[in-house]
Amino acid sequence: MTPVAVAVEPVRDEHLVAAIEGAGGRIVGLDDARVLVWIGPPGEFPELPDAVEWVALKTAGIEDFVAADVLDDRRIWTNASGFYAENVAEHALALLLAGLRQINTAVLRHWDKERIDTAVRSLHGSTVAIVGAGGIGASLAPRLRACGARVVAVNRSGREVPGAHEVRRSDELDQLWGTFDHVVLAAPSTPETRHMINAESLAALPAHAWVVNVARGPLVDEEALHRALVDGQIAGAALDVTDPEPPADDHPLWSLPNVIITPHVANPASGLTRELAPWVAENLRRFVADEELLSVVTTNRDY
Amino acid sequence: MTPVAVAVEPVRDEHLVAAIEGAGGRIVGLDDARVLVWIGPPGEFPELPDAVEWVALKTAGIEDFVAADVLDDRRIWTNASGFYAENVAEHALALLLAGLRQINTAVLRHWDKERIDTAVRSLHGSTVAIVGAGGIGASLAPRLRACGARVVAVNRSGREVPGAHEVRRSDELDQLWGTFDHVVLAAPSTPETRHMINAESLAALPAHAWVVNVARGPLVDEEALHRALVDGQIAGAALDVTDPEPPADDHPLWSLPNVIITPHVANPASGLTRELAPWVAENLRRFVADEELLSVVTTNRDY
Repeated sequence: MTPVAVAVEPVRDEHLVAAIEGAGGRIVGLDDARVLVWIGPPGEFPELPDAVEWVALKTAGIEDFVAADVLDDRRIWTNASGFYAENVAEHALALLLAGLRQINTAVLRHWDKERIDTAVRSLHGSTVAIVGAGGIGASLAPRLRACGARVVAVNRSGREVPGAHEVRRSDELDQLWGTFDHVVLAAPSTPETRHMINAESLAALPAHAWVVNVARGPLVDEEALHRALVDGQIAGAALDVTDPEPPADDHPLWSLPNVIITPHVANPASGLTRELAPWVAENLRRFVADEELLSVVTTNRDY
Repeated sequence: MTPVAVAVEPVRDEHLVAAIEGAGGRIVGLDDARVLVWIGPPGEFPELPDAVEWVALKTAGIEDFVAADVLDDRRIWTNASGFYAENVAEHALALLLAGLRQINTAVLRHWDKERIDTAVRSLHGSTVAIVGAGGIGASLAPRLRACGARVVAVNRSGREVPGAHEVRRSDELDQLWGTFDHVVLAAPSTPETRHMINAESLAALPAHAWVVNVARGPLVDEEALHRALVDGQIAGAALDVTDPEPPADDHPLWSLPNVIITPHVANPASGLTRELAPWVAENLRRFVADEELLSVVTTNRDY
């Protein structure tokens, strides 16, 4: 079988080249390509030869490519939303476990055994809500389940989420906060989700609760969060996103011992192509086998 | 059905009492008990009435009870090794993820996005060795697998470990270090395992490797570890145990940014009865149903 001709542009990234060749592809220039893997910005996107049947974009949200009028309906376009879900789910689990196991305190207060021993909590046996459970929720649920947690997925429709023990609709949330031990936010930023973590939801959560945000900063009312943490209404917060980013140097959340803030690195830009490579390889395998590709973009939607 | 009469001594811990009553038990004094849950030290262990059929001890290693000549072969004795394995496995996963996702750096250096973004690594897609894979390994393997890691369990016999993708014998380790991305130590402290992480094994591990120790401090040559971390031979170390404990205040490991040290809290003493309670309840359910109990101690062995 002839190897599939793949262009990797605007630079022939070594990780992607190795993965593509490993999956039976052959690296060519764009003029000879059936497949384009584009890792550059929308503004530099090239004119596409008719022979290009599939374009793989590296980002999850492709609103910038839509705005640049790059997409057409003459070929298949894929984004990387499935891939990012794995990475973001892993970061969410890391943040939740770091909070429960007091890694932050251990880093700041050397061998403060008395304080840490009494503060450590276990994920196993707890009930964890994933609010906004789409792709990230589907990746996170089996990880939490393997850790012995009960997983309640919350989404708008109440549609099933693989790996979750239970699914609830987001319009039920007001009645549900008190039934969760911990909450992971994975919902998009919309007017509906803005400040869903606020004084009321924080008051309803149990005192041992950790709130994890790997979605978008505006989902959390940071003033209300700060008050709840100071008052001991919840146990802690672990945030990969804030509003704005970064928080001001003198933001009061920085000074709380029960807050972990990572600088929006759930899906780090630097390791992107290395991490993306196996995913491109899998899609190339599917392309060769004439199977359905992962993360196909529907071009009649906005994103 | 008459509730099973259970004594909880030397203090009627609220978590255990609630769990036992929830599982259909009735709390009584020792003289009226069929079951004794003993949460005190070996030295205070009481004379047992003949009517006691089962004694539940709260510790995993029961060498101190054996030394105090407490155990007999006239009833069932259980320890809590299965329970602790879950807790220690969870802490090991928390340490590994905290290292890979740079939680330590994020706690120390506020929103240092450039440094952290380039240093974050993913557990999914990596190969993780669990060295000394017994009960902890069996609890950790499915957690790592759910996170998308390939799990290589290493034990003396090469016997199967549930959830591991592969099992290797510990006498093969010299040839294996270079094939692991990360290593979790879960082996007992013996002359054979002393300093198994040493200059040679550290040199053989890849530069992106994290070493996690939730076993015992002497498994790691801390001088060699410090040199390897300073020289960039491995990426980091996350230790719940050291040798001695705690490390000296001026121990050089404290000053390294890529070291996480938690104060031997993988299985925290403070939350013990709260955490232990569901396990006691499950064993009580089995006792009532005449099923085999979890973690039965074989009294003709030393531990």
